[in-house]
Amino acid sequence: MATKQEVNGNGKEGLFGSALQNLRSAWREIVRVSRKSDTPDISNPENLRAQIEACLEKKGGDVSARHRAAELARAYLAFPPAKRLAFLRVLSSEYGADADLIAGAVAGLDAATSAEEVETARYRLRQALEPARLNLLREFNTLQSGPRFLVQLRKDLIDFKKEHPELGPLERDLRELLRSWFDIGFLEMQSITWNSPASLLEKLGRYEAVHRVRSWLDLKNRLDIDRRCFAFFHPCMREEPLIFIEVALVKGLAVQIQELLDEKAEVLESDEADTAIFYSISNAQKGLVGISFGNFLIKQVVAKLRQELPNLKRFATLSPLPGFARWLARELEVENVSLRPGELKKFKALGLEESPLQLLAQVAQSGKWARDASVCEALKPVLLRLCADYLLNAKRKGGAKAADPVAHFHLTNGARVEQINWMGDTSGKGMQESAGLMVNYLYRLDRIDRFHEDYQSRGKINASKSVKGLLD
Amino acid sequence: MATKQEVNGNGKEGLFGSALQNLRSAWREIVRVSRKSDTPDISNPENLRAQIEACLEKKGGDVSARHRAAELARAYLAFPPAKRLAFLRVLSSEYGADADLIAGAVAGLDAATSAEEVETARYRLRQALEPARLNLLREFNTLQSGPRFLVQLRKDLIDFKKEHPELGPLERDLRELLRSWFDIGFLEMQSITWNSPASLLEKLGRYEAVHRVRSWLDLKNRLDIDRRCFAFFHPCMREEPLIFIEVALVKGLAVQIQELLDEKAEVLESDEADTAIFYSISNAQKGLVGISFGNFLIKQVVAKLRQELPNLKRFATLSPLPGFARWLARELEVENVSLRPGELKKFKALGLEESPLQLLAQVAQSGKWARDASVCEALKPVLLRLCADYLLNAKRKGGAKAADPVAHFHLTNGARVEQINWMGDTSGKGMQESAGLMVNYLYRLDRIDRFHEDYQSRGKINASKSVKGLLD
Amino acid sequence: MATKQEVNGNGKEGLFGSALQNLRSAWREIVRVSRKSDTPDISNPENLRAQIEACLEKKGGDVSARHRAAELARAYLAFPPAKRLAFLRVLSSEYGADADLIAGAVAGLDAATSAEEVETARYRLRQALEPARLNLLREFNTLQSGPRFLVQLRKDLIDFKKEHPELGPLERDLRELLRSWFDIGFLEMQSITWNSPASLLEKLGRYEAVHRVRSWLDLKNRLDIDRRCFAFFHPCMREEPLIFIEVALVKGLAVQIQELLDEKAEVLESDEADTAIFYSISNAQKGLVGISFGNFLIKQVVAKLRQELPNLKRFATLSPLPGFARWLARELEVENVSLRPGELKKFKALGLEESPLQLLAQVAQSGKWARDASVCEALKPVLLRLCADYLLNAKRKGGAKAADPVAHFHLTNGARVEQINWMGDTSGKGMQESAGLMVNYLYRLDRIDRFHEDYQSRGKINASKSVKGLLD
Amino acid sequence: MATKQEVNGNGKEGLFGSALQNLRSAWREIVRVSRKSDTPDISNPENLRAQIEACLEKKGGDVSARHRAAELARAYLAFPPAKRLAFLRVLSSEYGADADLIAGAVAGLDAATSAEEVETARYRLRQALEPARLNLLREFNTLQSGPRFLVQLRKDLIDFKKEHPELGPLERDLRELLRSWFDIGFLEMQSITWNSPASLLEKLGRYEAVHRVRSWLDLKNRLDIDRRCFAFFHPCMREEPLIFIEVALVKGLAVQIQELLDEKAEVLESDEADTAIFYSISNAQKGLVGISFGNFLIKQVVAKLRQELPNLKRFATLSPLPGFARWLARELEVENVSLRPGELKKFKALGLEESPLQLLAQVAQSGKWARDASVCEALKPVLLRLCADYLLNAKRKGGAKAADPVAHFHLTNGARVEQINWMGDTSGKGMQESAGLMVNYLYRLDRIDRFHEDYQSRGKINASKSVKGLLD
Repeated sequence: MATKQEVNGNGKEGLFGSALQNLRSAWREIVRVSRKSDTPDISNPENLRAQIEACLEKKGGDVSARHRAAELARAYLAFPPAKRLAFLRVLSSEYGADADLIAGAVAGLDAATSAEEVETARYRLRQALEPARLNLLREFNTLQSGPRFLVQLRKDLIDFKKEHPELGPLERDLRELLRSWFDIGFLEMQSITWNSPASLLEKLGRYEAVHRVRSWLDLKNRLDIDRRCFAFFHPCMREEPLIFIEVALVKGLAVQIQELLDEKAEVLESDEADTAIFYSISNAQKGLVGISFGNFLIKQVVAKLRQELPNLKRFATLSPLPGFARWLARELEVENVSLRPGELKKFKALGLEESPLQLLAQVAQSGKWARDASVCEALKPVLLRLCADYLLNAKRKGGAKAADPVAHFHLTNGARVEQINWMGDTSGKGMQESAGLMVNYLYRLDRIDRFHEDYQSRGKINASKSVKGLLD
Repeated sequence: MATKQEVNGNGKEGLFGSALQNLRSAWREIVRVSRKSDTPDISNPENLRAQIEACLEKKGGDVSARHRAAELARAYLAFPPAKRLAFLRVLSSEYGADADLIAGAVAGLDAATSAEEVETARYRLRQALEPARLNLLREFNTLQSGPRFLVQLRKDLIDFKKEHPELGPLERDLRELLRSWFDIGFLEMQSITWNSPASLLEKLGRYEAVHRVRSWLDLKNRLDIDRRCFAFFHPCMREEPLIFIEVALVKGLAVQIQELLDEKAEVLESDEADTAIFYSISNAQKGLVGISFGNFLIKQVVAKLRQELPNLKRFATLSPLPGFARWLARELEVENVSLRPGELKKFKALGLEESPLQLLAQVAQSGKWARDASVCEALKPVLLRLCADYLLNAKRKGGAKAADPVAHFHLTNGARVEQINWMGDTSGKGMQESAGLMVNYLYRLDRIDRFHEDYQSRGKINASKSVKGLLD
Repeated sequence: MATKQEVNGNGKEGLFGSALQNLRSAWREIVRVSRKSDTPDISNPENLRAQIEACLEKKGGDVSARHRAAELARAYLAFPPAKRLAFLRVLSSEYGADADLIAGAVAGLDAATSAEEVETARYRLRQALEPARLNLLREFNTLQSGPRFLVQLRKDLIDFKKEHPELGPLERDLRELLRSWFDIGFLEMQSITWNSPASLLEKLGRYEAVHRVRSWLDLKNRLDIDRRCFAFFHPCMREEPLIFIEVALVKGLAVQIQELLDEKAEVLESDEADTAIFYSISNAQKGLVGISFGNFLIKQVVAKLRQELPNLKRFATLSPLPGFARWLARELEVENVSLRPGELKKFKALGLEESPLQLLAQVAQSGKWARDASVCEALKPVLLRLCADYLLNAKRKGGAKAADPVAHFHLTNGARVEQINWMGDTSGKGMQESAGLMVNYLYRLDRIDRFHEDYQSRGKINASKSVKGLLD
Repeated sequence: MATKQEVNGNGKEGLFGSALQNLRSAWREIVRVSRKSDTPDISNPENLRAQIEACLEKKGGDVSARHRAAELARAYLAFPPAKRLAFLRVLSSEYGADADLIAGAVAGLDAATSAEEVETARYRLRQALEPARLNLLREFNTLQSGPRFLVQLRKDLIDFKKEHPELGPLERDLRELLRSWFDIGFLEMQSITWNSPASLLEKLGRYEAVHRVRSWLDLKNRLDIDRRCFAFFHPCMREEPLIFIEVALVKGLAVQIQELLDEKAEVLESDEADTAIFYSISNAQKGLVGISFGNFLIKQVVAKLRQELPNLKRFATLSPLPGFARWLARELEVENVSLRPGELKKFKALGLEESPLQLLAQVAQSGKWARDASVCEALKPVLLRLCADYLLNAKRKGGAKAADPVAHFHLTNGARVEQINWMGDTSGKGMQESAGLMVNYLYRLDRIDRFHEDYQSRGKINASKSVKGLLD
C-alpha cells in the first residue's frame, strides 16, 4: 500500500503530480503477468543470471519466457537505484555477442568471392554481432507495457551512464532498438484539446519544457479555440505523448510570449487568424533522447492547419534564444565585443555612469538589468545587433552549424530567421537566458526545401532583410 | 469577441470556470444554422410573433422551419434577462390550445357511446388540448444542441417563475416534454475516471453540490483506484452529465467524510475493499428539476460494482443530515426537548456552567460549539439520541414521509438507517447543518423491495438495532 | 435451443437471413433482466392483469417494476400470434383513462375563468386523459432494448389491426409515444460503407425496398467509391437503421437504373462526379410507419455531400413511377385516353395490327409488351406523353396532391420534375409498374423553399421545360 | 479508371473478390503524397538510381525524402511484373554496405583490447554492415500505408526469388526489418464477429486456408454465438489481419469438421459449452512468411476464453493431417507397411478381393475408396493404427521433429496428441490428404510447459493412452 504522498508528491510538485507513482497502479499489467510466488530473489546476481538465461533459452516455451521477463521487469521496477544499477551492469557486461561466432563469420567474409557469397557472409557476420542482451530487451517488449518499460530503462541508463560508462553498450543497443521501433512511420499525430483526458493534460503540464504551465487555467487557455496543440503518440504507448507542440492562432506575427499566455486576453475566432505561431515544442520522453521527431511533427502540423484553416497565410515560431546570454558572456570574456559610435553616443546622452561593457556583462549574468528605463533604452540597439550577430554568425565549435540549438533545429527544418523581438519574454528565465529577446522563425512552404539545402549542405543561414539590416 | 474574463470568470470562480460562456463557442451549431443576415429584430414583439408563426406553419418546409427555430434560439441566447423574460411571456401566454377545438372535442366526448367511440373522442380531446407552443419547443429540438437549449430554457423559466407565475403554463409544458425525452430508458450510465475529458471533469468540479471540490488534486483523489464515479448522460447531450454519484471503496463502514477526501490518505487496491460507500450524489442540471434519476443511478451502480468487484459485501452511504440543526432549533423553540437523567448527570460531572439546553441552542445555531472537549463529551450522547429521534420519528408536515430530504430519498430507494457517526463531517457546513453528524444508510440487496414497500405504503422506517437502541 | 434453420431461414430467404431470430440471442438483455423462476404464466389473463397492475403500481420500487416489464416483454416475445393478440387486446381495452377523473377535469375547465385557471384546467384535463397503458409502454422503454421492443409491438399492432380494430387505441397511443421519442432531433445520420458491420449491411440487404439486393457483390457495388449510402439511427437502437438512402456519383443525369446497379461498370473517382443521384430510399421499420424521416434525410445528405464533394453541381433522383401502370389502366377503363394524329400515324407506318389502345392496355397489364421493337418505337411517344400527364396532372382523390406517391414525396420536399427516361428500368417490376419509365426529380437548392411552398399551399407542380413540352 | 471486373474478379473468385485491386483506391495515400507531375520515368534504370539516391541523401529534407519514397512506391505498384523485377534487382544488387567501411571496422575490431573497446568496435562493425537499401525500406515505412507496402514488396520478392536468387539479400533485409517491426509485443488481438466490418470479413473469407469458406452464410455461421474468431493486427495496418483462428464452443470433443461447419446445426448457448475447439488457423499475409505468430495467438485465445467463459474445461484442436496420405504412399513404396493378423482376418471375413496393400495404395492416392462400406470397415483399424504410427513415430528427415507440420506446430506449443477421429473430414481435400482422418491436439494448461520442454529438447511426443493404445 502506498501513501498518496508518494503518488502526488509534495506541495511544490503537486500541481501536476510528481513522477513518482504507485508501482502496482502504474505497471499493473507487468505485475499481473508476473504473479508467481516462487520467484527467487533477483537482487542476488546468481538468481538474476539464472532468470535471464532461462528467459533467453525460452525454457517452457514463449509464454513462459514472457512470464520470466515480467518477473525481471517487476523486480527491476521495485528496486532502489543501487540494485537497478547492479542489474543493468550485469546485462551490459555479460550478455554480448559470441567472440568465436564473430571470428568465424569474419573468416567467412574473408573467404567469400562472388557477390552473392559476400552478401551472405556479411549477413551472417551481422547476425553474429547481435548481442544476446538484445533478445532480452525484445522479450520485455512482449509485455503489454513493454515499450514503456524499455523507455524507462533507457532513461535510467542515460542517468547512470554519466558515472558508469560501462553501461554504454547496453544503452547503445537499447537506443538502436527504440530507434527502429519508434520509427516515424509508426507514430500517430493527435490533436490535444480541453476535451482530451485529464490524465493526458496533466502530463502535458508536467512535460512542458519551454514555458512552464502554472495552473490548470493556464493549461485550459493553451487549449482554447484560438490555440492548437498536437502530439505524436506510439500506438503501443497511447497514454504517453512522445513530443508535443503548442500553437497560437493570431493576426500578424506574435512578438511577446506573455501576451500569448495571458489567460485574460481576448479570444479570437480561429477563422479570423492569418498566422499560426508555434510557441512551444517539448520532448516528453527522456528515454527517447537522440531519436528525433520534431521536424516531422512541425511539418505535419503545418499541413493539418492549412487544411483545417485555409485563411492561415503564415507559419512562424516565437522562440527563445537559450544560448544568447551564455554566448554574450564568452564574447565579453575574450574581448570580442565593441560598441559602434552611434551606440556609444546614446549611452552618454542618457547619462549612464557605468560603461556599456559593464552593463552588457550584467545582462550576460542576470535578468535584473531591465528595471532601469534608461539602461533599457541604451542597451536595446546594442543587444538587437549582437543578437542578430549571434543568430547569423555564431557557429558551433568547429562546424557550420548555428550555435543556438533552437536556431539549428528550425534552420535544419528549412525555416529562416524572420524577426527579433525586444522584451519578447520578460519571465525570469527569458531575461536570464535570452536577455528578454525572442525570435520568430518563418516557415515559407515554397522555400522549405531550398532553405534546408542551403543550411544542410553549405551552412548558409537565411534571414529576412530586417534581421540582416541590424548588422549594418 | 469575448474577453477571457467573461469566459473564465474571476478569481473566486476561476478554479472550475464560471457558468458564463462565449455565445459563439458554446452554441456553435445554433449560430451556424441560423446564419442569415436578413432576420428581423426579434426583440420587437411583432417580429417575434411573425417568426414564431412562420416557424409553426413550416413555411418553406421542414428545413426552413429549423432555420427559423435556430434564429429564435440564437436571438434568445444573446438577449439580456429582461428581453428573455419578454420572449418567454409571449410564448407562455399566446400560444396555447384552441378553445373552440376543445369545446368541440368535449362535445364529441359527451356524444360518444360505444367504448370505441369514447376512446377516439378522448384521443381527439387530448390532441385538441395540446398547446401550439409545444410544437415550437419540438422545433428547437431538431437543432443539434436543441436538447441542451431546452434544458437552459427551463432553467430560465424556473428562475423567472418565482416572480412571474404567468410563465407557469410554458414551464409545465416544457417539463412534460423533457420528462418524456429524458426518460430513464434513454439514459446511459458512464464511468468517470481521471482519463475522462478534462472539460467533463471541470463540470464535475462545478456541479458537485454535497462536498465542494477544492482543487484539481482533490478531484483526482476522488477518481483514484479506490474511488469510483458514475454519471447518467442523455445520448443527445453527451457533454453534460445529468446526475453523478461518487463512491469510495473501503474496508468496513466509512464514518468520517474528511478521511475519505484526504488526498494524502493511503490508497487501497480495489479488490481489497469489502464496502462501497456512496458519499456524494449531485444533480447537475437545474433545468431538469423534478425529473428524478437518482434512484435508478444508485441501483445501476450497485449492480455494476457487484459485477466488477465480487469482493464487495456491503453497499452503504455516508450522508449528511441537512435538516437536523434546523429541526433541533424548532424543537427547542417549542420546548419539545428534555434531557434524560443520565445525560444531565454527565453535564454536572464535567462541571459545565451553561445549561444543557443553552448548549443545544448553540449547536442549533452555529458550528462553533465543538471547540471545548468537555462540551463535546457531554453533548455526544444527547445529540446522538436526538439525531436518532430526528431520523426515525420526525415527519414532514402532515405526512408519513421522513422530514430529512436525504433520509427520504434513501428510504424510498429501500435502504435502512444503519449508523450515526459522531464528528462524521467537521467542515463548516457539516457542523452548521448537521451538528457534525453523518449517517450511513445501508442498501441490503435482499431487502430493498420490502423496505421500499414498508416506507412507501406504510411510512415505516427501517433501522438497525444500534440506531434504534439510541432511543432506549 | 433453436436450430439454425429458424435463425437463417430457408434457401429463398437465405441470402440476407429471414426476420426470424433466436429469442435468446435477439433479446438477450430482456431475457437477462427477467431471470426469475417464479413468474406466473402470463398467458392466463388473470396473471397478466396482476402482473400489469403490479408493474403500474411500482410495487417494490422502480427496479422491481422494470423486472416485471421485462417478464411481460419476454413472455410476449415467446408467445405465438394468438397469445400475442390476446395480450394486446387486454392492454388496449382495459387500461384506458379514468372516466370519473375526466368528467371532473371537464367540469373544472367549465368552471375556470381567468386565463391562468383555464390553462391549469386544460393541463389537468390533458393529464386525466392519459391512458394508464401509456405508463406500461414507458416502463418497457426502461429496458435496454426497450425502444426496439416497442417498435416490434407496433409492427404487430399494425398487422393485427386490420382484422381487430379494437386494437386502435393502443396502436394510436404507441404511435404518439414513438413519434415523440423518435423525434428527428434525436436521430443521427451515419454514412454506411463497405467497412460498416456485416450485420448492418445484412439488414440493408433485407430492408432495401426499391431495387432488391441480389447478392453481397451487388451490395458491395452499392458501397463502392462512386456510391454513398446514409441512414438515420436512433441513439438507443444503434443496430437498426430507421431509413436509408443510396446515392450514385455520376457525370450528368443518370437515366437507367440497371446501369447504376451493374457490378461490372466502370468506377468513377468521386471527385470527378458532377451529379449525385438518389436512386433508392427505404424505410426500414414497419413499426414506425406514419413517422416520417425521409424529407430530413434527403436534405442532410445534400448538405453533407456538398461539403465533402464541392465538385457536385446537381442533386437529383432516379425514381420509379409505382402508380403509372395502374393509373393508365383506369384511364383506359373510363375511356379517357385518346391518341394524337401524329402518334396514330406512326402506328400505321410501322404496320402494327393491333390498335394502339389495345397495346396500351397490354402495357397497363404486364411488362411483356417490350419485346417487339416496332411496338416499342410506336408506343414511346405515347407513353412519354401520358407519363408527363400522369406526373403533372393526375391528383389524388379529392385533393391537390400528386397521385404518384413518389412524386408527392419529392414535390413536398421542394424538388421539380426534371426528365422522364424511356426504358429507365427494364426489370420485371419496372416494366410492370412503371412501363419501364423512370423519372428524375431535381433538387435545386436555391428553389427548394419556393417549390415547396408552390406545391404545399397551391398544389402547383414545378417541372422542366422538356417535361412540360411532352404535353404540347 | 478501372473496370469493376478488375476489382471484383470473375465468377470463380467473385464471392470474396480477387486480390486485384484498383491502384488508386487501394493505395490512396501513396498516390496522394506522390502527386507531382514532373517525376521522371522510374522504369528507366538511370532515373531509378537518381531517385533512390536523392531519397537516401534526404535532399530537401525529411519531407522531400518521403515524397520521393512515395513516388517510387507508386511507380512500383503501377509496374507490370517484369518492371517490378527490374526495380527489385537494382535495389538488391546495388545498395549494399560499403566494403571499405567494413574492412576498416574489421581492422578496428582486431585492434580492440579492452572489453569496452571490443564492444564499441563490434557496434561499429554492425553499423558498417548495414546495407544502404535498409534506409530506403525505412523511408517507405514513413508513408501511411508503408507497412502494408513493405509486406506487399516481400510477397513479390518471395515469388520472384525462386527463379531469381539474386534477390536474396534484399528479401533477407526486408524479412529482418519486418520481423523487428511486427514484433509480437506490438500486435493486438481482436475478436472478430458478425458485427465486424464487412470488408474485414470479406478478407477472412479470402484468406481462410484450412476449410474454404463457401458463402457469406457459411461465414456468418462461423461467427455465431457458439463460435469465436480472433485475429492479430498490427496497429499500423489495421485493415489487414495477420493471422486468425476459428473456435467452436461445444460439449465434449468435436470429432467431425462437417458437423461444425453445418449452417443448419443447432446453436449452443456459449455458457453451456465445456470445450473450445480450435478448428482453423490461417496466416493471412504471404509477405510475413517466416515470422511466426500462431503460438502466441493460440495461447492468448485460451487466456481470453477462460476469462470470458469460466465453464470451459477443455481446449483442443480439430486438425487435419496434411502429410498422412503422402507419408503412407512413401511407406508403401519402400515396403515398410505390413498388416497384423487380426487386421488381415477382417479383410478376409468381409470377402474383399483386392489385397489390403492394394487398398491402402488407393487410399494413399485418392479419396474415392470410401464409397464401399466393407472397404471402410476393413480399413478403419489399419488406418487408425498407421495414423498413430505416423503421428508418434514419423520424423522429419534427419531430425527429432514430427513429420506432420500441423503436429509439429501444436507439439511445439506444448499440446499432446489426444484422439484420432475416423471420417473426421469427408471433404474432397480431407479424404485426399488425410484419408478422412482428423486429430484432436489437447492443450492441458498445467502441462504446457512440460510438454513443450519434452518435445523441444528431447523430441518426445506426448499422447493420450487411447492413441498410444492404437499401436499395441
